[in-house]
Amino acid sequence: MTSTIDPKTIGRPTRPRRHVRSLTGFLPEKDAAGKEKWPRGDEKEWRSALRGLDTDVGSITKSVVHHVQTSLARQPHNLDDLGAYQAAALSVRDNLILNWNETQLQYTRKAPKRAYYLSLEFLMGRTLDNALLNLGLKDEYKDGIKRLGFSIEDILEQERDAALGNGGLGRLAACYLDSSASQELPLWGYGLRYKYGIFQQLISPEGNQLEAPDPWLEHQNPWELPRLDVVYDVRFYGQAERLDGKGRAQWTGGQEVLAIAYDVMIPGYGTQTTNNLRLWESRPKRGFDLNSFNAGNYEGAVESSNSAEAITSVLYPNDHTTFGKELRLKQQYFWTAASLADILRRFKNLDKPITEFPEYAAIQLNDTHPTLAIPELMRVLIDEEELDWNTAWGIVTNTFFYTNHTVLPEALEKWPVPLIEHVLPRHMQIIYDIVSLRSFFLTRTLSDASSSRTSVERKFPHDRERLARMSLIEEGQPKQVRMAHLACIGSRKVNGVAELHSDLVRTTILKDFVEFEGISKFGNVTNGITPRRWLDQCNPELSALISKTLKLDKTVWLKDLTKLEGLLPFTEDKAFCKEWAAIKQRNKERLAHHVELTLGLKVNTNALFDVQIKRLHEYKRQTLNILGVIHRYLTLKNMTPAKRKKVVNRVVFFAGKAAPAYYIAKLTIRLIVNVARIINADPDTKDHLTLYFLPDYSVSLAEVLIPASNISQHISTAGTEASGTSNMKFCLNGGLLLGTVDGANIEIAEEVGESNVFFFGHLTPAVEDLRFQHLYHPVPLEQKCPALAHVLNQVSAGLFGDGHVYEPLLNTVRQGDYYLLSDDFDSYIAALGMVDEAYSDSEEWVKKSIRTTAKMGKFSSDRAINEYAESYWNIEKVPVTK
Amino acid sequence: MTSTIDPKTIGRPTRPRRHVRSLTGFLPEKDAAGKEKWPRGDEKEWRSALRGLDTDVGSITKSVVHHVQTSLARQPHNLDDLGAYQAAALSVRDNLILNWNETQLQYTRKAPKRAYYLSLEFLMGRTLDNALLNLGLKDEYKDGIKRLGFSIEDILEQERDAALGNGGLGRLAACYLDSSASQELPLWGYGLRYKYGIFQQLISPEGNQLEAPDPWLEHQNPWELPRLDVVYDVRFYGQAERLDGKGRAQWTGGQEVLAIAYDVMIPGYGTQTTNNLRLWESRPKRGFDLNSFNAGNYEGAVESSNSAEAITSVLYPNDHTTFGKELRLKQQYFWTAASLADILRRFKNLDKPITEFPEYAAIQLNDTHPTLAIPELMRVLIDEEELDWNTAWGIVTNTFFYTNHTVLPEALEKWPVPLIEHVLPRHMQIIYDIVSLRSFFLTRTLSDASSSRTSVERKFPHDRERLARMSLIEEGQPKQVRMAHLACIGSRKVNGVAELHSDLVRTTILKDFVEFEGISKFGNVTNGITPRRWLDQCNPELSALISKTLKLDKTVWLKDLTKLEGLLPFTEDKAFCKEWAAIKQRNKERLAHHVELTLGLKVNTNALFDVQIKRLHEYKRQTLNILGVIHRYLTLKNMTPAKRKKVVNRVVFFAGKAAPAYYIAKLTIRLIVNVARIINADPDTKDHLTLYFLPDYSVSLAEVLIPASNISQHISTAGTEASGTSNMKFCLNGGLLLGTVDGANIEIAEEVGESNVFFFGHLTPAVEDLRFQHLYHPVPLEQKCPALAHVLNQVSAGLFGDGHVYEPLLNTVRQGDYYLLSDDFDSYIAALGMVDEAYSDSEEWVKKSIRTTAKMGKFSSDRAINEYAESYWNIEKVPVTK
Ligand SMILES: Cc1ncc(COP(=O)(O)O)c(C=O)c1O
Ligand SMILES: Cc1ncc(COP(=O)(O)O)c(C=O)c1O
Repeated sequence: MTSTIDPKTIGRPTRPRRHVRSLTGFLPEKDAAGKEKWPRGDEKEWRSALRGLDTDVGSITKSVVHHVQTSLARQPHNLDDLGAYQAAALSVRDNLILNWNETQLQYTRKAPKRAYYLSLEFLMGRTLDNALLNLGLKDEYKDGIKRLGFSIEDILEQERDAALGNGGLGRLAACYLDSSASQELPLWGYGLRYKYGIFQQLISPEGNQLEAPDPWLEHQNPWELPRLDVVYDVRFYGQAERLDGKGRAQWTGGQEVLAIAYDVMIPGYGTQTTNNLRLWESRPKRGFDLNSFNAGNYEGAVESSNSAEAITSVLYPNDHTTFGKELRLKQQYFWTAASLADILRRFKNLDKPITEFPEYAAIQLNDTHPTLAIPELMRVLIDEEELDWNTAWGIVTNTFFYTNHTVLPEALEKWPVPLIEHVLPRHMQIIYDIVSLRSFFLTRTLSDASSSRTSVERKFPHDRERLARMSLIEEGQPKQVRMAHLACIGSRKVNGVAELHSDLVRTTILKDFVEFEGISKFGNVTNGITPRRWLDQCNPELSALISKTLKLDKTVWLKDLTKLEGLLPFTEDKAFCKEWAAIKQRNKERLAHHVELTLGLKVNTNALFDVQIKRLHEYKRQTLNILGVIHRYLTLKNMTPAKRKKVVNRVVFFAGKAAPAYYIAKLTIRLIVNVARIINADPDTKDHLTLYFLPDYSVSLAEVLIPASNISQHISTAGTEASGTSNMKFCLNGGLLLGTVDGANIEIAEEVGESNVFFFGHLTPAVEDLRFQHLYHPVPLEQKCPALAHVLNQVSAGLFGDGHVYEPLLNTVRQGDYYLLSDDFDSYIAALGMVDEAYSDSEEWVKKSIRTTAKMGKFSSDRAINEYAESYWNIEKVPVTK
Repeated sequence: MTSTIDPKTIGRPTRPRRHVRSLTGFLPEKDAAGKEKWPRGDEKEWRSALRGLDTDVGSITKSVVHHVQTSLARQPHNLDDLGAYQAAALSVRDNLILNWNETQLQYTRKAPKRAYYLSLEFLMGRTLDNALLNLGLKDEYKDGIKRLGFSIEDILEQERDAALGNGGLGRLAACYLDSSASQELPLWGYGLRYKYGIFQQLISPEGNQLEAPDPWLEHQNPWELPRLDVVYDVRFYGQAERLDGKGRAQWTGGQEVLAIAYDVMIPGYGTQTTNNLRLWESRPKRGFDLNSFNAGNYEGAVESSNSAEAITSVLYPNDHTTFGKELRLKQQYFWTAASLADILRRFKNLDKPITEFPEYAAIQLNDTHPTLAIPELMRVLIDEEELDWNTAWGIVTNTFFYTNHTVLPEALEKWPVPLIEHVLPRHMQIIYDIVSLRSFFLTRTLSDASSSRTSVERKFPHDRERLARMSLIEEGQPKQVRMAHLACIGSRKVNGVAELHSDLVRTTILKDFVEFEGISKFGNVTNGITPRRWLDQCNPELSALISKTLKLDKTVWLKDLTKLEGLLPFTEDKAFCKEWAAIKQRNKERLAHHVELTLGLKVNTNALFDVQIKRLHEYKRQTLNILGVIHRYLTLKNMTPAKRKKVVNRVVFFAGKAAPAYYIAKLTIRLIVNVARIINADPDTKDHLTLYFLPDYSVSLAEVLIPASNISQHISTAGTEASGTSNMKFCLNGGLLLGTVDGANIEIAEEVGESNVFFFGHLTPAVEDLRFQHLYHPVPLEQKCPALAHVLNQVSAGLFGDGHVYEPLLNTVRQGDYYLLSDDFDSYIAALGMVDEAYSDSEEWVKKSIRTTAKMGKFSSDRAINEYAESYWNIEKVPVTK
């Protein structure tokens, strides 16, 4: 029974919710003596009922069986592998939650400064195996599961990837969460709980990529914890009315949507610390939201409920490109508004003055996607906390940190001013205020007098061009907001993700800001990867060999990865080298087995495994690779059978998704599939060269592919790949790197030595000039690179099916060639030749492989997260002990 | 990793899924000796891990605390009442599931004939209290909860109603489920899992009904069990191509949607039997459905996923009216197709010939909503099982049973032929085949020669009008399919829901069919209500008093309700009568407390409580009631204060929802609210007459209102209310009945004796004639019923706010007066007077009250379900014992 309601109250902002009893982040009350009181009920009764972790095989078995009986409502005779997985997952989940509870309580007690990682993508992959390893309970569960008649390997395979990301950026976020928990750092992730993750990629018989929705929550998700009591209102549209001359305003009306929290437990490795990844789901506001109420009809209201839910319905499947969809903007705001409200509530619970906010919260912006957090925090501080502009701006610019992930022009986010004005009228006001009225750019404001800050105009008088370049608003039809500029000026520090990339940030897209704000604001944190998943979990045999060889428990070296250097002397140990090679061979066979199971194809495991797996993108140059494969095929065809026998046999693997609207990238997939169809069936060459496109690239597929590679390709046009992280993963697993002098390839080479990597191609400083030449002094391809021209002609001529189909792709090379395939082709082919030569010396190859792994210490995400913690966020470890 | 896919295969029907290991309805394998083998794993290990029910306070407490720690991830100090409810519910759920498992296994072992109750609505209300009572564990949980510092009453109040129904029809279905489990009958319910149940009703300050969506699943639902492995494809649109002359066809293309099962446990009272209510949720087909694939773009595919989900998004909030929405038709087909597929799979698991289907399954059609099951079963039998038409029709007509719930013309379902043709092309073919080609209506078919059936045409030669009247297709623009006719001819038996109503069915809407098929096909099963919820649970004090007085454990009389007759002698027992009256008084105070808590209004509990709670509908005549209240008010105003003092003080309660588009019904609410505003504030009368409209009528509100009533009103125009069930509930709780000679009122009076009910108004046979008079010989209202005319004039004149607003409502009485208010008003007022008089003799009133309760035995839904089991379905009890 509900009371009457006055529709006039609908659409007005409500006071922010206070912290309530049911939320985490709440401590028991204390008595006069400062001792915690038992909250409610009979303490003895409670204490005797409270449970601890299930860690012995007996209680693990019991817990799994109970979940079979109740949570799944199954009986022993109707339990299949999927059911057994679910029951085991629920049992592990119980354990994780207990640690999670303790961790959060400890954070509340200690009230340390915390860091928050805002990322629109978290590419988590599977959880069960990782959780078991991090909890140190894999053997116990394996045993318990076995007693119940199941095998741990089979049930691990039942889990479906959590694929809430496109690629590197999302997987990086996942690695950082793992490292934060393992390093006992108080960090939470904030993201969106998309109902559909990255699409499922299917390949049609013609070789086309088809995209199907990924209903990953279909079988329920044991790894999340709905926190239906953690809920915030988020507003869209409506009116923003200025209230006074101080920049304050009231924002009312429009659509109101609820953000509901789902918490994902992030267990640390070998520690009780279990951090939190909070994902927001959009829900209709219970009762009324103004839009549906105005619609005035019940069916309309139900439909508008669906429109609220649409916000977190799907991950946008674009990587390194932007597109001005309103729904995407709504996603960004929904997520940043809910996350900030949550962070502020937690802070306010400490009863500190609001000006101390930056001493308790550091917020990392993963790319420009969460940049709206900057005007949103301004809005809250000014409109709700009623601070003056300068105080608010001071808080904001001490709270945020911005990581730039790309200097590609098509990837730099811009939002049309009219769109922001429509969807977020108050934020557009604030952005204009930043530009013109207050503080940053111009001198003529009131508040400037009292401010110690220097405006751009004061520092560079009369440099109008500079002002236009730096402005948050780009002139044009329509005007656009430059999100990278907003992220930069609203943050305390800015970083790139590898040395070369950070340099490019400082010298290209943010050059003016470096000149204005000083170089010290612009740093670098080279990306890292978690060695738990990317070595111990995906390559358990290698992990065991390393522990045995280093005579170190894996819990030691997996958390101090520089210990791997201890392997270097063993390059001279024959037995060790043999074992090393044997493990690589077994990983190749594991991959072959997997391909046979899933695709029904038999792979030759005696060949060199050459792998390029990553998003399809012109800058990543999968096209260079497939054209190289064709070149090799044509060369082989021209050889005598005897000569062919001397060639290093090669199996080339591709995997990766293309954005659904990325025509050229999809054409590349089609070419790869059709080349595979022809050459894998050619009796002349198929023993020497085969090619596979593995559909639906994912974290789990990467975990099988990476340990199996002999060589992997990271061949982006110099200056385009900010870092790359799969390069680190391959190297950590003893695969050698064939690449351009780009991104983290450079630092990998610095570590392992140039003799252990295969570099080719033009360097970054040459790129601009080459592009200029292509435009103004084009040389016909036949002349410039006959080998490449021949390959293109063969494709055109129909060697791999109707050549017409591929013309648009081939023309990207023939005309303009923005990504410099014609400039790099010859050196690429030469590099492939050097790989062949090196691989022929199998003993030396193994040594290269060992040396590579041994020098990967730098690339642990533990190192990276510690750099962030120390040099950016200023947070400290908070150990959790019962 | 998924393999390639050929889009050409999309949209073709797949073979029906076989029964698989993971489903229920699967027995362990047996060894050569016929002994069941242990399926997998170590039997001892399993057995020692298996758990039983938690029945003692110690294990109950433990189980609740464990759920607090893990399922809720809470700590003792952040547990509130809602959290405690959730933990307790999860603990009870575990117990229910264990019984549910045993019951289903028993059904599989015994393979009895089963009954299936197909209902588009199940108005379940709350579950926790009911489950505790049925399990017999209420005291234990109460104790356990208390030790943890909570009160059972408070946590019961935290539960949200499951309100997947509009009113009587849906609540009846819920009562029947309870009775089936309590009577150990193998019955399953099949319905839809609407994401939004019946709307939440709010009242604006002007008195308007506002409708808000009811996101009842928002806080998760512990009472359901997702069975994600029970899933069927359902097709819409596309093409149906006839394959041969035998009526076979292939249906391809269009939209494919998945139906996923959610099981709701239905515990029996005092038995281990826990039946199942299976609710279907619509989901997008994983991968592709043809519509979205044709859309050709990824965003389109994601949107089309949402369109699949829209099917079970919302319960249509209409009661007793139809409306030709495509989505509603899709709901009906989706639900019947999934349910039939599930029933057939279960049957096929028995390995019996398909012709024996009716010996293993009886399917009850609750109203015409599931009538598409008839052509759907034909489709499956003909197109998939490849039976000939006559065999198929024989199976169908031995399987279904149809309950008619109304003879109101506006409630008789009809669907436009073009709409069915578009959405369900194959079913339209089959319906046409029933009409013209085969079997039922005409003689000129091939198959008729071999059939022993007589066609309508043969039985009534040359009676074309009869053929037109009986046809499945109603001529017109557009043509329409008459669902009641289809339900009738496709069923083995047809029944109405009370004696009078069943007579009306036989003599009006299905008269021709009675003449053709014979009277024995047309029966009656008077509705019933479950005394567990509607006495023991909602009125525990009365239940305890009855047990004490009858010297019977409640488990006895609650399952044989005729035992209540044993109360009759106690009408002469003063002490008993006093206690009886005191309990009624406390229930009135409980209601008053509730109104104060939720609405902040103080109710006078010393007055007579007069209650009318049910859907707002013109035929139910809430208007008559409110006009009567106004009449009483005007009369009181005209009295001297001294005379007023002698009047029986009265508090009138209304509650009920109006269909959102039902303008007149909503105006009635507005009138009630505004009359209440005026008269409750009138110092002259407010001690003698007050009026409340309680918003958001629901099962839970009914549970508070019903035990508190002295008199309840069931005042439909004679011949319009098929049965009514709330009348039985009031009477069971010792409330007296004021009503018309309609529906089950008649049978109630037969039981308790006319002297214990207050009847008024014209009888059914007079209605047609009165309506004729209204149309052709209208008499001005002033003349016909001056009292009523005066009341209407006062409303018009603005006594309760702007009179204009109410003109359309008042005009329904002034003009046409289809529901005969003017004919019944005077006798209604007289009957109210008799109530006053009777109530003044408080001792005699209590006796009436006791006699009423004592004679309610007939109206137990146990009686009704047993009638269905014996005279319709031919199913037997299947006791479950460990
Ligand atoms: C599924 C997935 N996508 C993308 C990436 C990033 O790959 P790269 O660094 O090659 O762009 C990874 C890294 O392993 C990954 O696992
Ligand atoms: C919520 C609800 N609606 C409707 C009904 C049916 O009421 P009636 O039989 O008066 O139409 C009931 C019966 O108690 C009910 O609980």
